[in-house]
Amino acid sequence: MGLSRRQFITRVGAAGGYSAAFTMMQSLGLMPIADSVAQTPVKVDGQGTKVVILGGGIAGLVSAYELRKLGYDCTVLEARSRVGGRNWTIRKGTEVEFTDGTKQSCQFDDGHYFNAGPARLPSIHKNMLGYCRELHVPLEVEVNTSRSARMQADKLNGGIAVEQREVVNDTRGHVSELLAKCVSKGQLDEDITAGDREQMLAFLRKYGDLTPEYKFKGTERSGYKVFPGAGNVTSIEREPLSMDELLSADLWEGMLAEDIIDWQATMFQPVGGMDQIPKAFAASLGAIIRHDADVQEIEQGEKGVRVTYRNTRTGKTETINADYSICAMPLTVLAKTKNNFSNDVKTAIAASSYDSAYKVAWEGPRFWEQEFNVYGGLSYLKQDVGIVWYPSWGMFSPRGVLVSGYGVENGTPFGSLPSMQAKLDASRRAVELLHPGCGAKLGNPVYVSWGHIPYNLGSWISGFGRKEHTEYETLLKPDGRVYFAGDHTSHLVGWQEGAALSAIRATNMIGSRVSQRSSDAA
Amino acid sequence: MGLSRRQFITRVGAAGGYSAAFTMMQSLGLMPIADSVAQTPVKVDGQGTKVVILGGGIAGLVSAYELRKLGYDCTVLEARSRVGGRNWTIRKGTEVEFTDGTKQSCQFDDGHYFNAGPARLPSIHKNMLGYCRELHVPLEVEVNTSRSARMQADKLNGGIAVEQREVVNDTRGHVSELLAKCVSKGQLDEDITAGDREQMLAFLRKYGDLTPEYKFKGTERSGYKVFPGAGNVTSIEREPLSMDELLSADLWEGMLAEDIIDWQATMFQPVGGMDQIPKAFAASLGAIIRHDADVQEIEQGEKGVRVTYRNTRTGKTETINADYSICAMPLTVLAKTKNNFSNDVKTAIAASSYDSAYKVAWEGPRFWEQEFNVYGGLSYLKQDVGIVWYPSWGMFSPRGVLVSGYGVENGTPFGSLPSMQAKLDASRRAVELLHPGCGAKLGNPVYVSWGHIPYNLGSWISGFGRKEHTEYETLLKPDGRVYFAGDHTSHLVGWQEGAALSAIRATNMIGSRVSQRSSDAA
Repeated sequence: MGLSRRQFITRVGAAGGYSAAFTMMQSLGLMPIADSVAQTPVKVDGQGTKVVILGGGIAGLVSAYELRKLGYDCTVLEARSRVGGRNWTIRKGTEVEFTDGTKQSCQFDDGHYFNAGPARLPSIHKNMLGYCRELHVPLEVEVNTSRSARMQADKLNGGIAVEQREVVNDTRGHVSELLAKCVSKGQLDEDITAGDREQMLAFLRKYGDLTPEYKFKGTERSGYKVFPGAGNVTSIEREPLSMDELLSADLWEGMLAEDIIDWQATMFQPVGGMDQIPKAFAASLGAIIRHDADVQEIEQGEKGVRVTYRNTRTGKTETINADYSICAMPLTVLAKTKNNFSNDVKTAIAASSYDSAYKVAWEGPRFWEQEFNVYGGLSYLKQDVGIVWYPSWGMFSPRGVLVSGYGVENGTPFGSLPSMQAKLDASRRAVELLHPGCGAKLGNPVYVSWGHIPYNLGSWISGFGRKEHTEYETLLKPDGRVYFAGDHTSHLVGWQEGAALSAIRATNMIGSRVSQRSSDAA
Repeated sequence: MGLSRRQFITRVGAAGGYSAAFTMMQSLGLMPIADSVAQTPVKVDGQGTKVVILGGGIAGLVSAYELRKLGYDCTVLEARSRVGGRNWTIRKGTEVEFTDGTKQSCQFDDGHYFNAGPARLPSIHKNMLGYCRELHVPLEVEVNTSRSARMQADKLNGGIAVEQREVVNDTRGHVSELLAKCVSKGQLDEDITAGDREQMLAFLRKYGDLTPEYKFKGTERSGYKVFPGAGNVTSIEREPLSMDELLSADLWEGMLAEDIIDWQATMFQPVGGMDQIPKAFAASLGAIIRHDADVQEIEQGEKGVRVTYRNTRTGKTETINADYSICAMPLTVLAKTKNNFSNDVKTAIAASSYDSAYKVAWEGPRFWEQEFNVYGGLSYLKQDVGIVWYPSWGMFSPRGVLVSGYGVENGTPFGSLPSMQAKLDASRRAVELLHPGCGAKLGNPVYVSWGHIPYNLGSWISGFGRKEHTEYETLLKPDGRVYFAGDHTSHLVGWQEGAALSAIRATNMIGSRVSQRSSDAA
């Protein structure tokens, strides 16, 4: 999942070189941006300047969209017949082909889909929301947290799944009771004044829903054994889960997922699938995009960049010349593409390594809604498959698509499973553990493993070689007339927002150069 | 707000009389229902039995809907020209008239609305969701929690509003640090074994996002001073709020609102307004509903019930006779209606007291989305107006309606404000405190105070007199041929689900009597 990668990359970047003055000004809130390159599009006259953009993922599309606004003559070379790159929505008839020749053809009902790549837009990702607004891509709420979603670990509740509300609220109850005990005994008197002590105890009673004696005996927040009703139907609370079991179960990552900054409510998804975004860019860009253009070689000289590509429909080799290039291909693919980049850039590209994230999706009746009262959100398990993700579209309809399994394959137990069948079995088992009796109701599985998808060969960058910040810094600078873009040149690795910001950054760097050149000529 | 009322009533009910055997069976999970009357509709042949239902709120509508399914001949008497009771959606042209003659006419843009009564459907309220499904009322997600929503207290951050993510995550950070300190020092060794101690520390580090030394120094979860971006734009975390200030600010009620059982995600709202539900019932029931029928007198004898009502359109007095009646009027209104109920029932009704909840809504540009990145959810303040509630409909459109102020007026500082203007000023001030510079952008206010709305005269029951469970029990039993329904005869006071369950309960009681009579006759 994105987080650890992003944090890793953030560290890489933090170790790199922006000046102390900038940092201080930012700390004081005087500057919104910490880069020498603006993050919002800068106005420049692009007329007469030709830019070839390699890759029609979000970074490539945003680059073309911003450059076109400024009058540049630009072209996007995209190897596939579709745009979007990792932004890929799978529907009935979509063919999933791996690099090893494995083929799947999606058999979903009409109108059903799953987003194999990015599947949520946090509201703090303002550039992506802005593009959706500008391109009239309707958004709907993506329910990323539901208290009715479930959690399962063999060490908790005898392996029987519980609701997220129990884990969240019982944990908070136990923590509050333990801390109240210490506060009552005066064990924190160094930290807490007498007045604060009373306030702290009053707070802990509310925080954990403790008894007047500061004991945690269970809470209505964790749900009911018997729901309150009419007449004499009074509610009966559940017995709380024990802290011992909660500690052993170690479901903390899932429980705290709702507070990962990029996963916090409110989140969105485009109505009808994430690919509505690249489709809207493509509709706007029109002939600027050349499809089926598999880049073979990138050559630059003093006067321009020449890109050779194979038209995969006709089989013919074609070339395009431009003043500049924005290279928005994954580094995994770039590493296999002939080029005359500098040695530093070649070294950085070669040193990069990528994670292979996967998702498994299934179609079935909406038992999660109808029988388990789960509407959207994610369930978490301590199993080889650790995430089951419910659809936020089509709620209350008879059937839907759920994702059982989302994570990294490299170096994980799931990735070590011997076959696709074993992986599908593990995926189905996760659903069965969460929703007993329902695993068998699932059909039409689709398994996407990004490391095996041609033209991606990975999901997101996991790091560079030994000199990480040097390599990251190298790719932030243009190599002659070539500018690098993509989420791997951002601190939002694995997010479309990172790709978009990197593209704006690249177009701004080209803009500075063009305006410099114009003023030199004047 | 509903919670304390419901808890109150739950206590009332719990003190009442269902048998120990039932309780035990429920505890063992052997019975889903704790009442002698089933909570799901029971099949009975209602042909030839006439029932008059008083009040076309949710309880009355559900009663008619269920009885009609069983073949009963039923009629709903509704005093207003609309159905729904407290379920009331206000739009352009809606007239809001108080009992004291104060009049407001809503001036919103076309398509804009606010739900003056219930405004959310928790997914655990399965009966209401079921009726929406059955009646084809489309639902959409009601965002009840957003980490970008704001919190404000004069004692916190110099009175400058902060984001909910800061209060939630900084509080958890401080709590974790304090508890980790006690655990490290061995102060909980009575409660925690050595092995658990390590697990507990590892957990607290994750829970609070502590440093390796178990200190809380702030967390990315609380948001950024500088957002991570492309290139060298690394994020800078916010300084954490201090626990001292958090304790003084006492924003706990708002912070914990997301874990109130009926407010937990996932929640819904009907597309286009809550009144889509009563409208759908009305469309299904057709001529069963008599509008403009202001009940004047309820008289019952051995053979039937006779209800006299004034047709408020024609001014004529009319009567209707039936075998049974379901009385689903608020007790406030019933208390003023002539009747020949038993003394116990009259006493119970007279002893009831109701809260007067209010809402204030405003129309304006969506500055909360565009400038403050808030999409749905509720902000909380420690001010006379303590809640600002953002619309979950029409996100990303230019203008919308927000509710600034939702709470009880009786016995509160808001209720004590001297005039409607003073209340509107307090409402606008809350928005200004949360969104500086934006209070003045609001217009077209609508103030609804349920205690002053004819035919409601209150929002929900707050209690009875001195013998509370006796009085509650009294209303659970039929008084001769009259059965009482409404959320006040449930443990879900203030919720449509309580009204629906009470209605199903009343129809089942009539069903038992009808089938008993049939078998007696046979």
